[in-house]
Amino acid sequence: MNTATQLDAAFAALADPTRRAILERLATQGDASVLELAEPFDISLPAISKHLKVLERAGFVSRSRRAQSRPCQLRAEPLTQISRWADHTRQAWEARIDRLDAYVQKLQAQSALIPRNDKEISNEQD
Amino acid sequence: MNTATQLDAAFAALADPTRRAILERLATQGDASVLELAEPFDISLPAISKHLKVLERAGFVSRSRRAQSRPCQLRAEPLTQISRWADHTRQAWEARIDRLDAYVQKLQAQSALIPRNDKEISNEQD
Repeated sequence: MNTATQLDAAFAALADPTRRAILERLATQGDASVLELAEPFDISLPAISKHLKVLERAGFVSRSRRAQSRPCQLRAEPLTQISRWADHTRQAWEARIDRLDAYVQKLQAQSALIPRNDKEISNEQD
Repeated sequence: MNTATQLDAAFAALADPTRRAILERLATQGDASVLELAEPFDISLPAISKHLKVLERAGFVSRSRRAQSRPCQLRAEPLTQISRWADHTRQAWEARIDRLDAYVQKLQAQSALIPRNDKEISNEQD
């Protein structure tokens, strides 16, 4: 998978509240079996397995081959990729706004140096 | 929209390389019309408009009513929300690993203090 395809899969995997809740649970409480992960949700075991497959394909979850319960484990790498993309885009936007601000201030400073014409000055003296 | 629905929409919107490229373009080069945004892509204008609607609904883009070209503008708030969710989940995972490490070290330190039995010691002396 190239980076664009990885990002496609990672963002698509996170566009579902059950899948995000599964990842939050693995992050805070550690490895868990499919049965344990299904417990808090009012959905069927096959539905949970389907969600896990989406998370596995996107690289968020790996499953151990050791135990019979094949516990699920969080993998943090796609989370880093996602924040990196969002931060990078936001920082580019902020840098552009900063450059625009600096440019406006420069224009204002320049216009303050231009002598005003006599009419304006005489009006002020009235 | 509640936060979960907002995150659903934001993540779903970013699961497409064209939509991400549109946001990157708005971030680095500033406001642009639909025509300008369509230029680098080999897709139809209606397809670009459709992508923009998805980005608008997810809160990433707003469109000015001032000019006839109705330029598109990036809105950074959903980007912040997305990094916040990803960072928060990753940090919870890292904190868990750190606690686990500390616990293992504590166990190792405790086991070093337990006197070994005579048999082990006599074996070492052979």
